[in-house]
Amino acid sequence: MDFDRFKDRFQLIDDRIMECLSGEPKRLYEASRHLSKAGGKRIRPLICLLSCEAVGGKADECLETAVATELIHTFTLIHDDIMDNDELRRGVPSVHQVYGEATAILAGDLLFSKAFEISNPKAMNVLAKAASDICEGQQMDISFAESKVVTEEEYLEMVRKKTAVLIQAASESGALLGGGSKDEVKGLSVYGLSIGMAFQIHDDVLDLLADEETLGKPVGSDVVEGKRSLIVIKALDSLNRGGREELLGILDKETNTQEEIARAVSLFDESKAITYCKNKAKHFIMSAKKALEQLPKSDAKNDLMEIADFIVQRKK
Amino acid sequence: MDFDRFKDRFQLIDDRIMECLSGEPKRLYEASRHLSKAGGKRIRPLICLLSCEAVGGKADECLETAVATELIHTFTLIHDDIMDNDELRRGVPSVHQVYGEATAILAGDLLFSKAFEISNPKAMNVLAKAASDICEGQQMDISFAESKVVTEEEYLEMVRKKTAVLIQAASESGALLGGGSKDEVKGLSVYGLSIGMAFQIHDDVLDLLADEETLGKPVGSDVVEGKRSLIVIKALDSLNRGGREELLGILDKETNTQEEIARAVSLFDESKAITYCKNKAKHFIMSAKKALEQLPKSDAKNDLMEIADFIVQRKK
Repeated sequence: MDFDRFKDRFQLIDDRIMECLSGEPKRLYEASRHLSKAGGKRIRPLICLLSCEAVGGKADECLETAVATELIHTFTLIHDDIMDNDELRRGVPSVHQVYGEATAILAGDLLFSKAFEISNPKAMNVLAKAASDICEGQQMDISFAESKVVTEEEYLEMVRKKTAVLIQAASESGALLGGGSKDEVKGLSVYGLSIGMAFQIHDDVLDLLADEETLGKPVGSDVVEGKRSLIVIKALDSLNRGGREELLGILDKETNTQEEIARAVSLFDESKAITYCKNKAKHFIMSAKKALEQLPKSDAKNDLMEIADFIVQRKK
Repeated sequence: MDFDRFKDRFQLIDDRIMECLSGEPKRLYEASRHLSKAGGKRIRPLICLLSCEAVGGKADECLETAVATELIHTFTLIHDDIMDNDELRRGVPSVHQVYGEATAILAGDLLFSKAFEISNPKAMNVLAKAASDICEGQQMDISFAESKVVTEEEYLEMVRKKTAVLIQAASESGALLGGGSKDEVKGLSVYGLSIGMAFQIHDDVLDLLADEETLGKPVGSDVVEGKRSLIVIKALDSLNRGGREELLGILDKETNTQEEIARAVSLFDESKAITYCKNKAKHFIMSAKKALEQLPKSDAKNDLMEIADFIVQRKK
C-alpha cells in the first residue's frame, strides 16, 4: 500500500504532536517527544481523519482528537516498556533507558494529560473509556505471562482491550466529530475494532513467517519468549499429548536454538494453528469492510477499505 | 474545624469513588482502591461541591467532576510514591509495595482515565491542564532534589504546579458547572489556587513546629531529608556566610541528631524564615478569602471561608 498520498496529513499530525510536546521543564518534554521522533506509523490519527471525512466531515474538525489518539498510544508504549523492562522501541533505546524511570513515568503521564488537553470534549468519553480498557488489557497481558493456561476467548478479550479499542476510539471519534449518523458512527466503530483485532493476530503470524530482514527483529522471538499468542493457544488446544508437551518444552525454555524454533513452527503447522489464525484475521478484515458498506462513495472510504486489506497483507 | 457537617457529602463522594473503581481484572482494581480505602481528606471534591453551591448550583451537577479531582489526586500519589521510592502512604504500605511496580503504574493510569471517563466534558480542559501542570511540577521537584540552589520564585512555581493547580481545578470546575458568572468562576479559581499555595507552605512550617504525636511523623523530617522548602530557601538567603554553611552542613548530612535538628530550627528562627513563611501562608489565605467576597451570602460561602482559615490553623 502506498502511504505517500497521506503525506500532507502525516505532516499536519506530526506538526501538531511536536507543538503539543513543547514546554518546560525541558527534560520532561524531551522525554515525551522521544518515541514520536523515533518513528511510528501514525495509523490511529490517520484513521481518525479518514473516518471523519468518510461521513462527510472536514479533517480539521477532528485533527486535535486524531493527535490525542496518537498521544495516548505513545503514553501506553512508554509505560509498557517500563513494566516489561523492554530496552528498545522503534529502533532506539526506550524512554526509561534514556531518561530514567521517574521521568519516563512522568513523560507517559504528560502525554496522557496532553491528549485530554487538546481533544474535542465531545470525544472525551470515547477516549477515556478506551484508555481504561487499555489498562485492563495490559494487566491481563501481565497476568497471562504468569499463568500457563489461557483460553482463546481470554486472549481475544485481552487483544481487544490492549490493542483494538484505541483504533476503535480513533475511527469512532472521527465519525462522531465529522457529524456522522448513529449508524455511521457505529459502523466506523466496528471497523476500527475489527482491524485492531486483525492487526494483532497478523502480528503473531508475522513473528513466525516473516523473513528476519523485513521484520527488523529475529523471527520466532515470541516462541523464545514463550508468549501465549493465539497460534500457541490454538496449537496447545489441537495437538495430542505428545505434541503438546514437546511444544510446551520449547516455549518454557529460557532460550531456543534455530532447530527448536523450526520445530515449533512445524508443530503449529501440523495443528493447523497458523491457518486458523490467518483465517481469523481475514474474518475480522471482512467484518471491517462490511461495516463500511453503508457509507456513501468517497476517497476516504476507499482509503479505509485499502487500509483494512493492508493490515493482513503487510510483511512487517 | 468541624468536618462532621460534611458527613453526607463525604459519603456520596466515597460511594462514587468505590463504584468507579469496581471492575476486572480484580488485582488492578484492588490496587486502584488501595489508597482511597486507607484514608485521605477528600478536600478537593468537597471544595468542588461547595464551589458549585456557592454560585447557586446544585452539588449533583458536579459530583462526578468532584470525584474526578480526587481520582487524579490519588493517581499522582501512586506514581509519586514509585518515583520517590516511598514505602508508606496514609499509614499503609504504598501501592507498589503491595502490588508491585507494574500494577502500581497501571493502577495510577487507570485512576487517571477513570477521572476523564466520569467527569463532565465541560470540565475536561480544566482538569487536563491541571494534570499536565502536576507532571511539570513533579519533574521540577525531582530536579530540585539534585540541585543545590533553588530560588523562592522557582519553589513557589513548583508548589503552584504540583499542589495548588488541582485544588484550583476543583474550585474552578465546581463554579463552572454550577453556572457561575465569569467573575465568580475567576474568583473561585483564585480561591483554590491561593489555599493550595498556603496549604503547602503551612505543611513545611508544620514539619518543624508541630509536636510529633499530633503530626503522626517525626518533627524535622524535611531537615533530615535535606528538602529545599521555602523555609530553607529563605534562611539560606538571609543568613550570613557562617550560618549558611552550618545550615547546609546539617541539611546535607545523611541523618541528623535531635540537637542538629534543634540547631537548624534556631537558624531558621534567627533568619526570620519561619515568620516569613507563616506570613506568606496567611497572605495567600487573605487573597483566597478576598476572592470570595463578591459571592452572595450562603452556607457554602461560609464553609469555604472557614476551610481557608483551617488550612493555616491545622496542627497536622
